[in-house]
Amino acid sequence: MAAMPHLERLTAALQRLPGVGARSAARMAYHLLQHDRAGAVELAQALLAAADHVRHCTLCHTLCEDEVCATCADPTRDPALLCVVETPGDQAALERTGTYRGRYFVLMGRLRPLDGIGPEAIGLQALLQRLQAEPPVRELIVATSFTADGEATAHVITQLARAAGVTVTRLARGVPVGSELEFVDLSTIAHALADRRPG
Amino acid sequence: MAAMPHLERLTAALQRLPGVGARSAARMAYHLLQHDRAGAVELAQALLAAADHVRHCTLCHTLCEDEVCATCADPTRDPALLCVVETPGDQAALERTGTYRGRYFVLMGRLRPLDGIGPEAIGLQALLQRLQAEPPVRELIVATSFTADGEATAHVITQLARAAGVTVTRLARGVPVGSELEFVDLSTIAHALADRRPG
Repeated sequence: MAAMPHLERLTAALQRLPGVGARSAARMAYHLLQHDRAGAVELAQALLAAADHVRHCTLCHTLCEDEVCATCADPTRDPALLCVVETPGDQAALERTGTYRGRYFVLMGRLRPLDGIGPEAIGLQALLQRLQAEPPVRELIVATSFTADGEATAHVITQLARAAGVTVTRLARGVPVGSELEFVDLSTIAHALADRRPG
Repeated sequence: MAAMPHLERLTAALQRLPGVGARSAARMAYHLLQHDRAGAVELAQALLAAADHVRHCTLCHTLCEDEVCATCADPTRDPALLCVVETPGDQAALERTGTYRGRYFVLMGRLRPLDGIGPEAIGLQALLQRLQAEPPVRELIVATSFTADGEATAHVITQLARAAGVTVTRLARGVPVGSELEFVDLSTIAHALADRRPG
C-alpha cells in the first residue's frame, strides 16, 4: 500500500473519540473521504468553532457558551440550594423532573484517582469557593452516581461542605418507581429498608 | 439549558460519522470539550488535511495521496491480470495472502440502486476504460462480497467485461479452511458441492 500519511493521521485522530478503535476509525475515515467530504469539512469546522466558543460557566462549571449558563443566570432560582451533579446529562435528568428550583454545580466528571482524575479536575476548588461566596448556600444536595467512584466523590464533597458549615444531603436510595420487589437487586432493597420512612 | 449553538452544531456534525447516533455524538462532544481540546483541534486539522490531500488513484480508483497508488505504480505487477474488489480493506486482505501479483480495481463500494449508489458511484465507467486501455487485460477476477449487493455488482461487472471481450473469473465459494462441515451453513456447503474439484 502507498504511504498515506494524511489518511493515517486522520485515522489516529478519530481514535481520540471515546469508544472508537482502530477498525471504526478506519471505517469512519473511508466513509468521510469516499462518500461525505462535505461532512468531513463541516465536522472540522464544527470542532474548531466549539473548541473556540464552548467554555465553563464561571458559577456552576458546566459547559457553556457565555460567561454564565442560563440556569445560573435565572433570577427565579433559589441560590441557597445547590445540587452537585457529575455531568450536564445528570443535570438535565433532574431538570426534567420539574421539581427542583435551586442552582447546580456540575463536576464534569467524578473522582478517579487511579486514572489521574483528582479534586482539581472536577473543580472541587471552585465548588468550595462557591460554598463560601455570597449569597450563602443553605443546603448542598449531593447527586453523584451511586457507583464506587460516585460514592467516593460524594464522600469527599460531603467532608468539604461540612467543613465549610453547609448542610449536606444525598439523593435517596431505594426501590425505583414501577418496579416489583422480586426483580430489584438485594443491595437496593437493603438500602430501601434501612432508609424506610413513615407511611 | 442555555442555547449552545456551537455544541449543537458539533453534535450534529459528529452524527455524520457512520455508526454514531445522537447519544454517542453527545458523549464524544463532551469528552473532547471537557478532556481533550487538543484532540478536537488535531481531529479538525486531520480532517481538513485529509479532505485536501486524499484523492482517487487515476488507475485503480482506490484512495491515494498521489496521482497513482503504490500498487499501480509497481512495475513488477502483471498488468494483464486485474482483480475487482469493493474496498481498500478487501484489497489488503488479498494482498496479505501474498499469492496475487496482478493489479486491482477498487470500486470503493458496491451497487446499491435503492440507496442511489449506481454504476457511476462505483466507477464502472473508469473500469470499462481500464479494460479497453493498453496494455490489454487478459483476465478480470471479480472479488466482490458474496452478499446480495456484492453478487449483483459482480453480475453487472461480468456483463461489462464480457462485452469488452475480457475473460471473467470469480473467487471460489466453498468451505472455509479450518472449519468442520457440521458448523458450516447449508448454502456454503451446497456451493462447495456444486463446485467440487478433482482430488
